[in-house]
Amino acid sequence: MKLDALVFDAYGTLFDVHSVQRRCEECWPGRGAALSVAWRAKQLEYTWQRSLMRAYRPFSEVTRDALAHACEALDLPLSSAQSDELLQEYRRLSLFSDVTATLRQLDGRKAILSNGSPDMLEPLVRQSGLKLDAVLSVDELKIFKPAPEVYALAVKRLGVEAGRIGFVSSNCWDALGAKAFGFRVFWINRAGAPVDRLGVKPDAVLRTLGELPEVLR
Amino acid sequence: MKLDALVFDAYGTLFDVHSVQRRCEECWPGRGAALSVAWRAKQLEYTWQRSLMRAYRPFSEVTRDALAHACEALDLPLSSAQSDELLQEYRRLSLFSDVTATLRQLDGRKAILSNGSPDMLEPLVRQSGLKLDAVLSVDELKIFKPAPEVYALAVKRLGVEAGRIGFVSSNCWDALGAKAFGFRVFWINRAGAPVDRLGVKPDAVLRTLGELPEVLR
Repeated sequence: MKLDALVFDAYGTLFDVHSVQRRCEECWPGRGAALSVAWRAKQLEYTWQRSLMRAYRPFSEVTRDALAHACEALDLPLSSAQSDELLQEYRRLSLFSDVTATLRQLDGRKAILSNGSPDMLEPLVRQSGLKLDAVLSVDELKIFKPAPEVYALAVKRLGVEAGRIGFVSSNCWDALGAKAFGFRVFWINRAGAPVDRLGVKPDAVLRTLGELPEVLR
Repeated sequence: MKLDALVFDAYGTLFDVHSVQRRCEECWPGRGAALSVAWRAKQLEYTWQRSLMRAYRPFSEVTRDALAHACEALDLPLSSAQSDELLQEYRRLSLFSDVTATLRQLDGRKAILSNGSPDMLEPLVRQSGLKLDAVLSVDELKIFKPAPEVYALAVKRLGVEAGRIGFVSSNCWDALGAKAFGFRVFWINRAGAPVDRLGVKPDAVLRTLGELPEVLR
């Protein structure tokens, strides 16, 4: 499978959000896991709902709102200092252990395409040390994934046609949005989840990012 | 608050989905509650994701796909007969106990505006005995709530301007989508959940539908 560019999702695909979960557990002992799940679910819901309502707000704001809602729903007190601190954690997430070595083995142009707003994404990528050709945020489009215009941004900015772009995400719905748009798609299914039923299938399903160079050979 | 028309969401607002949950429990004893939650969450996700992907499919199909995914994720075997039977349950849901009496007390035109496709919605409304001026489905628009064109359908079909329409939903994100569009909005918050943070607030929050005539007086 010869491709000219690889485009990666950021949160959960290259960057491990586990440290956010750990910080939640420190703030609310015994409730960290439940809060993390509720927070993440609400964060995604708000991206989809705001996109459909045409009421876009940057991902940093959506993420903060989702945290406030999740804490209220679980009856956990949340100070503005805790909110700031948890949001700050998103700017210093660790890479999954196989990311740096894997990306070095991959030819062609490499980019990130993320829901993250530049205020979250730029410090995160800077501290990671990753060498990328582009870091693309939906923010300039004012709509979130999986809207096709998001994937079109990568085509436009990389100057590579859709069929020559490989898209890599651990979020199945994101992978399938990219597939419906026309990318070659690699779903990183670390949890062994069933594939989503959205009318298309990934071109390949991998258990780790480290399997990617072999699949692309 | 003088209004010329009232528009109601169907599932969870007028119609109680409890019987679907009970049927899930009969099929998979001890797992019915977990399956119902996973099914409903996936059903809504698929409506938002397909709308953003511009890959609309009727709600009956989305609901069937969501059931299949939820069963696979929870490792529950699902036969096509069980799938048919659970989908059939959606066509004979009961009204909440206060619906018939409450609607009789309300003046003006009354309509349903639902994600449900006509193949699900029409038999459901027919068996309920409700007297309505219109039963509107997103199906003709090929996009789901909370897209503004969905709420605009009610304006167009009822011939009433948005500010003179009251919209009633137990789904907070649906109520807020309608509010952002311009309706007067009543969120039926039976579960005592926190309000969603989507940039607007409901005009009123009620614990039951039965409180509506008093609020509209």
